[in-house]
Amino acid sequence: MALRYLGQTLAQQIDVELMSPTAGCFSIDQLMELAGFSVAQAITKVYSKEKFPRVLICVGNNGGDGLVCARHLHHFGYQPSIFYPKQPNKLLYQNLTNQLRNLDVSMVNNLNDQLTKSDLIVDGIFGFSFSGGIRAPFDEVIKTLKSSTLPIVSIDIPSGWNVEQGNIDNVGLEPEMLVSLTAPKIAAKFFKGKHHFLGGRFIPPSFAKKYELNLPEYPGSDQCVRLPN
Amino acid sequence: MALRYLGQTLAQQIDVELMSPTAGCFSIDQLMELAGFSVAQAITKVYSKEKFPRVLICVGNNGGDGLVCARHLHHFGYQPSIFYPKQPNKLLYQNLTNQLRNLDVSMVNNLNDQLTKSDLIVDGIFGFSFSGGIRAPFDEVIKTLKSSTLPIVSIDIPSGWNVEQGNIDNVGLEPEMLVSLTAPKIAAKFFKGKHHFLGGRFIPPSFAKKYELNLPEYPGSDQCVRLPN
Repeated sequence: MALRYLGQTLAQQIDVELMSPTAGCFSIDQLMELAGFSVAQAITKVYSKEKFPRVLICVGNNGGDGLVCARHLHHFGYQPSIFYPKQPNKLLYQNLTNQLRNLDVSMVNNLNDQLTKSDLIVDGIFGFSFSGGIRAPFDEVIKTLKSSTLPIVSIDIPSGWNVEQGNIDNVGLEPEMLVSLTAPKIAAKFFKGKHHFLGGRFIPPSFAKKYELNLPEYPGSDQCVRLPN
Repeated sequence: MALRYLGQTLAQQIDVELMSPTAGCFSIDQLMELAGFSVAQAITKVYSKEKFPRVLICVGNNGGDGLVCARHLHHFGYQPSIFYPKQPNKLLYQNLTNQLRNLDVSMVNNLNDQLTKSDLIVDGIFGFSFSGGIRAPFDEVIKTLKSSTLPIVSIDIPSGWNVEQGNIDNVGLEPEMLVSLTAPKIAAKFFKGKHHFLGGRFIPPSFAKKYELNLPEYPGSDQCVRLPN
């Protein structure tokens, strides 16, 4: 049975169901922690801290996965920095940001400057809820990232892509690696980068069966698994 | 610099500080998720799912780490069962329990019977807050576990042990493996089992420095590290 690629509505429905008090019973803290950890672990499998020590993580409105990923990368021995131009006034994100401050992770304002001091970009700008046009300030951010030659790792969806139709009009990023979360979204079929991983090893088999996700087996205690290109 | 073994007061202080909104800024969900995951991962390094598939997890009043550990073991391919005689009326623990129900993890009532159907015991009964005598129903539970010949993995502190003085009057468990969390407690110096691991890879270096924890390096993206015996 082939792995299922999720449309936007179904991705949202599964997300809601995972956190529903009458279904999955997960807290957002738990899911974000596991998702962000899985992204960080996937990065270690492709980009070593020796060759790619300086990781610039670009975080969008709701980029908790990126913030968690940054924290774990720091513990793994990388030197993450955070570009986070629009910080929501929500306790969850403030706490995740403070956790990074406690690690002395740099919060940077000048994206162009930071790109010259980085080896790898993590794109945590937009997720599976993205739709419509790219609004400021992320229009300029994505243009700037597109002009960089550094490898990009996108979390769940390459930013700027339509969740189902892919990189329409080529306005979105073209990452070298994509880490799909829980299950790949339909747009991932258009991914042409080198490395595709799946993370988010928390889907109950009963959910996977109900939605016919046909998830692959994760190896050992890994929280991510490489998908065939 | 030698690894520091924590007394009970300091262990409690660090725990409070990790979750303080003006210090660590972690939620209990996050820390429990990472701690429980680290225990599950440590188990995979010693007890394979092929030889020790059936894991009986005994959970005490506040045993969130044990419940999280059980969930990850299930995802890793083990067959956990849960003995949880006193379930607190708190949403956090109810959610962790419901997450296990969604995986069809057995909640068992008959400890003696379940021991005959298990290959490994996880002791998540008492943690670093334990003091005083062992109250019912855990007095009988610990006696029953002591009479078993199955290997035991204790989380943070072997149940029944004084957190600083160890297994006074030999009333506590004698585990084959101990997974200390964040930093070992003083009682761990009296641990004579085969395998000692450290989990809980989330301590900010600034905390570690302030409390002179002298933590070991964790390998790769692992959430646990073996400590010398």
